[in-house]
Amino acid sequence: MPHQISNDMRDCITNCSDCHSICVETSAHCLELGGEHAAAHHVHLLLDCAQICATSADFMLRGSELHAKTCGVCAEVCELCAEECEKMAGGDDVMRRCAEACRRCAESCRKMAA
Amino acid sequence: MPHQISNDMRDCITNCSDCHSICVETSAHCLELGGEHAAAHHVHLLLDCAQICATSADFMLRGSELHAKTCGVCAEVCELCAEECEKMAGGDDVMRRCAEACRRCAESCRKMAA
Amino acid sequence: MPHQISNDMRDCITNCSDCHSICVETSAHCLELGGEHAAAHHVHLLLDCAQICATSADFMLRGSELHAKTCGVCAEVCELCAEECEKMAGGDDVMRRCAEACRRCAESCRKMAA
Amino acid sequence: MPHQISNDMRDCITNCSDCHSICVETSAHCLELGGEHAAAHHVHLLLDCAQICATSADFMLRGSELHAKTCGVCAEVCELCAEECEKMAGGDDVMRRCAEACRRCAESCRKMAA
Repeated sequence: MPHQISNDMRDCITNCSDCHSICVETSAHCLELGGEHAAAHHVHLLLDCAQICATSADFMLRGSELHAKTCGVCAEVCELCAEECEKMAGGDDVMRRCAEACRRCAESCRKMAA
Repeated sequence: MPHQISNDMRDCITNCSDCHSICVETSAHCLELGGEHAAAHHVHLLLDCAQICATSADFMLRGSELHAKTCGVCAEVCELCAEECEKMAGGDDVMRRCAEACRRCAESCRKMAA
Repeated sequence: MPHQISNDMRDCITNCSDCHSICVETSAHCLELGGEHAAAHHVHLLLDCAQICATSADFMLRGSELHAKTCGVCAEVCELCAEECEKMAGGDDVMRRCAEACRRCAESCRKMAA
Repeated sequence: MPHQISNDMRDCITNCSDCHSICVETSAHCLELGGEHAAAHHVHLLLDCAQICATSADFMLRGSELHAKTCGVCAEVCELCAEECEKMAGGDDVMRRCAEACRRCAESCRKMAA
């Protein structure tokens, strides 16, 4: 019988998918701003976050039992990315929105990893 | 100055992202159903569609000028995937939902490719 | 100064990249064979393995400090995939080659995760 | 019967896979160099190239009939990326190696798209 995706997992998939999109868009924003926003360390953290979010979302969409492993790593990367984006946010809405998406994704990934 | 994403492009990104997720989930559904649903040709078309949708979405999120190229291919793959899913849908809601997502994505990708 | 990729990391990137390609090709092979080879559980494990390998390789190529996290998960997924492919290999060269690539990738990812 | 991957397609898969890896590594190199190398336009072109190469490689590994479409786009993106990397190469071996990988990939993708 086809696998069932629980409501919690549905939420986590949505959060991962949103976080992926926002991180890719924010990496472009940071490259365009230049300066500390375009520092290799920061842009890479955004790209790392985008990629592990996409990977975790796909594991859950496939109904893979191994999703807890990827969600565990995803929660850690998202948390670090949220912290960095918050520090750099100032009055910048794109950065703030990214921090919020990462925080939300970290929280639901922690649940799925538990 | 940071690139602006137009409303039409925003819609297309959402449609690509949704179509990606639904195609991955539907590929799992098809594998679990077995039979003609699990035919290599059909599962591959779903995975092709999922991957080109993710690629096109990322090109647009990066503000890349080359997005028209990926959206052009994406529109063609989505159209084929919509047709196949429709043929196999019968009373299956997952297949029908996939056909609709592919159709919607094909339409907005055609606009972006123009 | 540009980041340096060590010889061990270079090897791990190559192993992840090779394992990704072989898992995608083997998933197609399994779908074409049908039967237990095309079981959702097995095809998904191959796709999971392919995706986490690609993710880990990219983390290392970006010089991301977080690569140890993704390599840790990658080692676990590759190990499981190697075991399954070995069990199903019989006289099938594609399955055996996949098991070997997964085993090799698991080993070098374990080193990077340490 | 399992699909056969021709020698030309095998070469193209290898070229796409190598070009993906080199473009990701070069994007990190460019971010670390800063200046014109880290311009949004240039880094995005490298990331675009890396992603369409990975997509085309996977289409071919799945034995998808639609690979000619993705290879067509891949050839165009690789060609543009090769030209840009060549212009910026100067005495920089990383940039030169990237230009060569893109050129080689563009050539074999053009064959597959024909």
